[in-house]
Amino acid sequence: MSDPCPFCAIGAVKADEDLVVLRTEHVFVTVTLKQRPANPGQVVVCPVAHATTLHSTEPALLREVFDVVTRVSGAASAAFQAVGTTIHNNNDAPGQVISHLHVHVIPRFAGDGLVIPNPSNETAPRSWRLEVAARWRRVLQ
Amino acid sequence: MSDPCPFCAIGAVKADEDLVVLRTEHVFVTVTLKQRPANPGQVVVCPVAHATTLHSTEPALLREVFDVVTRVSGAASAAFQAVGTTIHNNNDAPGQVISHLHVHVIPRFAGDGLVIPNPSNETAPRSWRLEVAARWRRVLQ
Repeated sequence: MSDPCPFCAIGAVKADEDLVVLRTEHVFVTVTLKQRPANPGQVVVCPVAHATTLHSTEPALLREVFDVVTRVSGAASAAFQAVGTTIHNNNDAPGQVISHLHVHVIPRFAGDGLVIPNPSNETAPRSWRLEVAARWRRVLQ
Repeated sequence: MSDPCPFCAIGAVKADEDLVVLRTEHVFVTVTLKQRPANPGQVVVCPVAHATTLHSTEPALLREVFDVVTRVSGAASAAFQAVGTTIHNNNDAPGQVISHLHVHVIPRFAGDGLVIPNPSNETAPRSWRLEVAARWRRVLQ
């Protein structure tokens, strides 16, 4: 039976390892499919194991997730010259596309005009996403 | 000298204690000034001590913040019959109004059409915010 969850597949190193920015013991960070031109560097922090919401996730695993979120947030300045970050996470929200727990880290820039949800539905070119991954890796690894 | 930080004042029990939903050892939860009609129950989770970003906050304190975020998120269903939650946090983001670290917990409902930032700049009536606080307290305390 195939695994229908894209983040389970990435977590299990079965897909898109070239877009993975960082792995810790139970958590990985990967570049989001959609990228905002005014906010280069958007990634998601996910547990490898399938979990759906903050409040249904084992506390130790959740702490590792937020430890990594914090580490990534702190690296946005060095990786992208960001002035700050926005952290965003949906838990069984209506319209949520992927149910596997994921915490977005969005680098912020003066005048970026960030709006959530992303008004664009276009997938960013893979070459762009690979460059985003490379820039994070230089700082985080 | 007066304290210019509104979340420091609430944390120190110098203002708006009637809008505080929950306190733990180093963290408090309070109702946001703006409320979305389609998303009743929005609150922020804050450390009592002034901190500005995830990545400049002491790790143990940050864990307490996210433990509380998770607890509040898990109570949104019982408190507001929410179907889920959205978690949102800015760290030195351009246009950020209050620099004291705060993590928004926004209850989610089918068809709520949530957009961030909030298109309305109006402060919700205090009576409404007091009712929101009361509904959270019934479940969390």
